[in-house]
Amino acid sequence: MKTTKIDFVIQHIHELIKTRSISAGSRLPSVRALAKQLNLSVSTIVEAYERLASQGLIESKTGSGFFVSGPIPPLSISQIHPKIDRNIDPLWISRQSLEAKPDMLKPGCGWLPDDWMPHENIRKAIRKISKVESKILTDYSSPLGSPALRELLARKILGKGIEATPNQILLTDSGTQAIDLICRYFLKPNDVVLVDDPCYFNFHALLKVHQIRIIGIPYTPTGPDLNAFSQAITQHNPRLYITNSGIHNPTGARLTASTAYQLLKLVEQSNLIVIEDDIFADLELDPAPRLAALDGLSKVIHIGSFSKTLSGSVRTGYIATKSQWIEDLTDIKIATGFGGSHLSAEILYAALTDGTYRKHLDELKIRLAKSMDFTIKQLEKLKIRPWIKPQAGIFLWCELAKNLDTARIAQTCLENNVILAPGNAFSQSQNYKNFIRFNVAQCSEQKVFEVLSHAIQQEIELQKN
Amino acid sequence: MKTTKIDFVIQHIHELIKTRSISAGSRLPSVRALAKQLNLSVSTIVEAYERLASQGLIESKTGSGFFVSGPIPPLSISQIHPKIDRNIDPLWISRQSLEAKPDMLKPGCGWLPDDWMPHENIRKAIRKISKVESKILTDYSSPLGSPALRELLARKILGKGIEATPNQILLTDSGTQAIDLICRYFLKPNDVVLVDDPCYFNFHALLKVHQIRIIGIPYTPTGPDLNAFSQAITQHNPRLYITNSGIHNPTGARLTASTAYQLLKLVEQSNLIVIEDDIFADLELDPAPRLAALDGLSKVIHIGSFSKTLSGSVRTGYIATKSQWIEDLTDIKIATGFGGSHLSAEILYAALTDGTYRKHLDELKIRLAKSMDFTIKQLEKLKIRPWIKPQAGIFLWCELAKNLDTARIAQTCLENNVILAPGNAFSQSQNYKNFIRFNVAQCSEQKVFEVLSHAIQQEIELQKN
Repeated sequence: MKTTKIDFVIQHIHELIKTRSISAGSRLPSVRALAKQLNLSVSTIVEAYERLASQGLIESKTGSGFFVSGPIPPLSISQIHPKIDRNIDPLWISRQSLEAKPDMLKPGCGWLPDDWMPHENIRKAIRKISKVESKILTDYSSPLGSPALRELLARKILGKGIEATPNQILLTDSGTQAIDLICRYFLKPNDVVLVDDPCYFNFHALLKVHQIRIIGIPYTPTGPDLNAFSQAITQHNPRLYITNSGIHNPTGARLTASTAYQLLKLVEQSNLIVIEDDIFADLELDPAPRLAALDGLSKVIHIGSFSKTLSGSVRTGYIATKSQWIEDLTDIKIATGFGGSHLSAEILYAALTDGTYRKHLDELKIRLAKSMDFTIKQLEKLKIRPWIKPQAGIFLWCELAKNLDTARIAQTCLENNVILAPGNAFSQSQNYKNFIRFNVAQCSEQKVFEVLSHAIQQEIELQKN
Repeated sequence: MKTTKIDFVIQHIHELIKTRSISAGSRLPSVRALAKQLNLSVSTIVEAYERLASQGLIESKTGSGFFVSGPIPPLSISQIHPKIDRNIDPLWISRQSLEAKPDMLKPGCGWLPDDWMPHENIRKAIRKISKVESKILTDYSSPLGSPALRELLARKILGKGIEATPNQILLTDSGTQAIDLICRYFLKPNDVVLVDDPCYFNFHALLKVHQIRIIGIPYTPTGPDLNAFSQAITQHNPRLYITNSGIHNPTGARLTASTAYQLLKLVEQSNLIVIEDDIFADLELDPAPRLAALDGLSKVIHIGSFSKTLSGSVRTGYIATKSQWIEDLTDIKIATGFGGSHLSAEILYAALTDGTYRKHLDELKIRLAKSMDFTIKQLEKLKIRPWIKPQAGIFLWCELAKNLDTARIAQTCLENNVILAPGNAFSQSQNYKNFIRFNVAQCSEQKVFEVLSHAIQQEIELQKN
């Protein structure tokens, strides 16, 4: 029995080191403190530390305790969850979707099918750029990126009530890179970051790279739960909060004006910076309130991209924030990637200013609304209910019967060439085991529902045994 | 006098916090330890700590000493050097070069003039891509990136003796991003990284983002100083070493076979991972030995891009390393940027496989050799001597008279619309105050030398007074 306890302590320290909760050179908790924390005897801890020291993983320094020996193994995001349960790894859905073979169906992926995208618009933009002045083809872009595109973006976000000059806009390679730069600017290891629970799974993957602590705030149909938000501020002194105001991923909900207002009051009294990720903005029918508009880009940073509505191949995102932060963020962008893609920014500008983009959006919204209705009906037959019916967007967040494990259902579906997005991939609390996010634009084929129905049956059988 | 000393301690702690040498929540050195370290009295330190506490910057916890209060201000790379001396800021040259107005001359910048670049090659590649299958125009790329380009890269690096399968190659948005991903994978704050002294200034900027300790290894005409390298390993247990084997930036030197062999023997016995940045590879006349070839991609990671020889606008770089690291690096790439630019990779592939790229390189090498000779002759007239005469490439690393301050000379030149690259921007030791790096391709206009000559005269006058 004693050996088991010692092994438990050894395993515990191994985990702390592997997930970088303690880094090389750091002091381990004192024997007494750890004994108290784990509710074990001091002698168990002493024995465990001695074995770890003999393994060379830690070392004792006379009079100052035990320290982690260097070097620790490289950062592995997926190792943070055990490989065997790869379903709840935040990168599982991305990797499966990006690596999908052509004959696979992808109701779990986060983007539109290829044939929904405006190819002629992009082709025209590319041809236009092939004829322009040569600098665009071979030179690095200016530090902030294409002035024309930044002017256009300033006008676009003004339409949502966000006032920013073109010099308050920094172009990035993607929406994800925009968030990453902001994280690099504000975060240090062990800082606390708030995310919605559920939220876009890649926020978890991204934040794990920053080795910070993530706290999930329950998301309601009107925005984040304000009590939980307020409590989290008091308890954890968080540095960042990442959210979507317009069309929330994965729930499809939208922030209401009153929640937005209450939220900002809480933010004002805290050390929090808010990242408002507006990646699905162009799919809205009527715009939700934007935190960045209410707050006047004081503590809220607004980011976005066109990868969902125009092209995931032409990579360009943006950050809108106050001038004093733009300079430092630009330095970090140059230091870590040198410049943004000059060519992509110019192609994006050409495509956005072509009248066809607006037309494409109008058609897209109608097509999405139809797909939403179709998907809801199909799911009804399987007794799968949406958590809410979203006003717009591509996502439908659905609840299955309480005892069903959607991670296991997703694995069965994958064997049948259907990629699902199981609920817990989106969740810090892991309270969404029986949820699935559906991309309604990827649900046009009956096979999706057949395979799903079969997988649910299999899961129900499994539950019976 | 006592007040001055207290202010000095306060300033010292402010600096430690601002540069993140101590992070929020960390314990400050004990009063006694700091007194000893700074050679001041205990009472001076006590008074300084108390004033800092009353400013709210630090707080005391009974019985455990003083701790840094959170949150600390965001990361500012340029603040790490005082703004007033912006010349030796590692981002100074990048920002000036990227923001240069059209009428400015840029002997300090790191790339070729626009009219040296193969525009027709790029135009043709872009037109070709505008006609291809639609997925390339709008879909995200696969996690590793374009298979065709990775196959081509595998063949290209095999030409330098580096054996890698296409699945051991990961596409990135740039050479800089390649290095950044590797740093994210291997480094934690306070790790030690070795760089050449002098080295490409952006390595300093990039590493500052990672908040690690940089140790400079003196660079000799045959590669890094092996004694210093060996000593650094023993003293600092470094985790990474970043270098250029082919054409070294800024010196233009190349690694010799014997230095490469000795270096690898030292690396083998250490915890070091080596990043071999091969960005200027395509400009070599006959290839230098590659560390990655000798080492068989065991502890050496090979990276590169085509931004210097094809286009800085079409952004794509690559990492070649062992399979076990490719998977984790891909996860980090997706987490922090989602995908690479699908479009850029395909345009790059089209441009590289067009027969004109090889022809462009051949012409480029001849043109560069001529410019090198021209620049050396012009500099001779100003009594500026190259440290070595490089076999190939775009850089000439030059020494001026010992007492001249090239940072000040660069500021004078900037006032006259000429952007220089002063020596200490490349140097960890700051021992290259009287050096300048010239880009010979940007030195075709007499005005460069006239402005430089004038600025040197002004500096000499200043020295006299």
